[in-house]
Amino acid sequence: MLKANQNYLKLPGSYLFSTIAKKVAAYKEANPDRTVISLGIGDVTQPISPAIIKSLHDAVDDMSSKETFKGYAPDLGYDFLRKAISENDYKKRGCDIAEDEIFVSDGAKSDSGNIQEIFSESCKIAVCDPVYPVYVDSNVMAGRTGTYDNGTEQWSDVIYMPCTADNDFVPDFPKETPDIIYICSPNNPTGTAMKKDALQKWVDYANEHGSVIIYDAAYEAYISEEGVPHSIYECSGARTCAIEIHSFSKNAGFTGVRLGYTVVPKELKDADGVALHGLWARRHGTKFNGAPYIQQKAGAAVYTPEGQREVKELVSYYMENAKTVKDALKAQGYAVYGGVNAPYIWLRTPEGMKSWDFFDMLLEKASVVGTPGSGFGPSGEGYFRLTAFGSHENTAEAVRRIKEL
Amino acid sequence: MLKANQNYLKLPGSYLFSTIAKKVAAYKEANPDRTVISLGIGDVTQPISPAIIKSLHDAVDDMSSKETFKGYAPDLGYDFLRKAISENDYKKRGCDIAEDEIFVSDGAKSDSGNIQEIFSESCKIAVCDPVYPVYVDSNVMAGRTGTYDNGTEQWSDVIYMPCTADNDFVPDFPKETPDIIYICSPNNPTGTAMKKDALQKWVDYANEHGSVIIYDAAYEAYISEEGVPHSIYECSGARTCAIEIHSFSKNAGFTGVRLGYTVVPKELKDADGVALHGLWARRHGTKFNGAPYIQQKAGAAVYTPEGQREVKELVSYYMENAKTVKDALKAQGYAVYGGVNAPYIWLRTPEGMKSWDFFDMLLEKASVVGTPGSGFGPSGEGYFRLTAFGSHENTAEAVRRIKEL
Repeated sequence: MLKANQNYLKLPGSYLFSTIAKKVAAYKEANPDRTVISLGIGDVTQPISPAIIKSLHDAVDDMSSKETFKGYAPDLGYDFLRKAISENDYKKRGCDIAEDEIFVSDGAKSDSGNIQEIFSESCKIAVCDPVYPVYVDSNVMAGRTGTYDNGTEQWSDVIYMPCTADNDFVPDFPKETPDIIYICSPNNPTGTAMKKDALQKWVDYANEHGSVIIYDAAYEAYISEEGVPHSIYECSGARTCAIEIHSFSKNAGFTGVRLGYTVVPKELKDADGVALHGLWARRHGTKFNGAPYIQQKAGAAVYTPEGQREVKELVSYYMENAKTVKDALKAQGYAVYGGVNAPYIWLRTPEGMKSWDFFDMLLEKASVVGTPGSGFGPSGEGYFRLTAFGSHENTAEAVRRIKEL
Repeated sequence: MLKANQNYLKLPGSYLFSTIAKKVAAYKEANPDRTVISLGIGDVTQPISPAIIKSLHDAVDDMSSKETFKGYAPDLGYDFLRKAISENDYKKRGCDIAEDEIFVSDGAKSDSGNIQEIFSESCKIAVCDPVYPVYVDSNVMAGRTGTYDNGTEQWSDVIYMPCTADNDFVPDFPKETPDIIYICSPNNPTGTAMKKDALQKWVDYANEHGSVIIYDAAYEAYISEEGVPHSIYECSGARTCAIEIHSFSKNAGFTGVRLGYTVVPKELKDADGVALHGLWARRHGTKFNGAPYIQQKAGAAVYTPEGQREVKELVSYYMENAKTVKDALKAQGYAVYGGVNAPYIWLRTPEGMKSWDFFDMLLEKASVVGTPGSGFGPSGEGYFRLTAFGSHENTAEAVRRIKEL
């Protein structure tokens, strides 16, 4: 009997950003005269920088002539890119990550959704609350999360680690031991980042308990403070307990270009001594066909001196927005978090307002779109996310409108 | 306890093409003076054609300026591409496929590996034997295939449908009813194609038995004969029983560019009436972030008049190779199949030679690489695949060397 994957049917409602998109579309149709400014979805707005554009053109030219044409890329990534990543993102920072521990992909979202597949269905996951929905939803689809409680908005077999102003947005160790721990730092959605000593404690915990940490470092380029690690492999012992996921979306503006990578160290093993490196390689080889040559050349350009300079400028551009929003909201009396090591501002809604009510109010009265904190989990209720990814002009205008509320 | 996905551990050995790559590398190292010609992996060798190169450059330019920059693509594909596909690949052929039934992806391999995920683990699959390994391996990873028998080289819970010269490479209906039926036509690896009446019988069978057909049409552009359907939706009733997967790799040479699409009609439902369209959309939205804008613009260029002309030329180029190989092998007395509606030549090994022995002999004596038929399944034993994807020069040289054997 043909039967759909019953786990999919357990997923409540639709994906957070789809819901927002629908609400915004309805609002625009009802108010064609108003200009809506979106500081909602974490999508970049500034163009790809010149050194990277040049490498994209060069790579396209390579595809146009028989001598330089490239067919199937190596499943795990071109050596030139894996080498650049290993050198720049790891060895320069004193992290011992080899080229062949780096798996190039079409983006961090695919990797963070697919990585759970190499683990048994019996593994228990722990996530921060609030959390990037992909970690949980991809585990729901795999049948790893039990049943959904509409009241608590939580899954029976997921360990939730609340991250709120009360614990400075750093998760406490859970009572129950998880097998797979998702940590995103700098964090989406809270915009806060773990210090090295806090992360080291989690690495020690994982090694002690035989857990694996899926470390999402997508926002690493936004770190501005000392003492905040750029990679989990800065912590000692991470090679035996951590997988790290990286994106080119937020440093180089590749949200529409699509490129990312994941690190699986060779020492990382399950309780039976099975090396996870080989499993992830097998998944890449079977269900993926390599990231495009054109994109991988663009990724390599990010690591050239010009690329590095341009990427820094891009990050600075967005971080100016973060400062603009944070300062203005603070001056208005909002409690505001994040925005220093991440392109997200996490604010407390005023007067205990529900997150979605604040969303509706902001859209209705200011024509500004943000993301309701509760969309990221129950502990996000009463919070609201604004991104720093707008243009300077739009961000300034959004802030002006919020001031007038 | 952290446990790896035990299904992965059941996979025997490594992926067919990795094994070939290793053998070839070893041969090259031992014989540095010989020029190896590969007619093995189905990878194209000719450059991307001018109209598509232009659209790639234009799309890169779009990414370089603020006004035309594109961030996240719509998860399911840009409307401009979905519309072009719907018009050209379907409506022009009298197939009723709407734009929103088309899901754009980073390639047919990803889709053919991932599509099984929307079905229950309890579903039973049927595959042709020989078969493109991804269909089986992706189901092994999902725990749908039972145990592997090293003797028969078959999985206990997979229904195998032998396709050999004895049945003209068209699968017979199996004794046991499958839930999911994989059909690839024009076929990889046999190079043969099903006629419309034969495919219509399979569509009727699937509708009668409540099965779904996963129809891989990656080689559709190579069809040269009348009466061979370009889409399964040319058969009546296919909208209620078929998913179709397409590639831009083999018509436009996108193996390294990466673009494909999958059609899931809205009427397609499981036994409980669950529409599969929504499930595939949910997977795209959760574990994929859209195909790159640059690639989608290139895909749209394939459907312009210049693009169509160039793609036809490219296909003709490779089909000349198919003819060269087929004619030469026939003249040598080989029994040869395929090569008329597909870029693959499927030959009987001489004197009952094992496929891998023929591989070793061909590599050793002619420095020509092909693919052993048994690598695609037990019924491929005694057969051998050569591709038409080489250059004219290499193909002619390979044929010359084979003649001298």
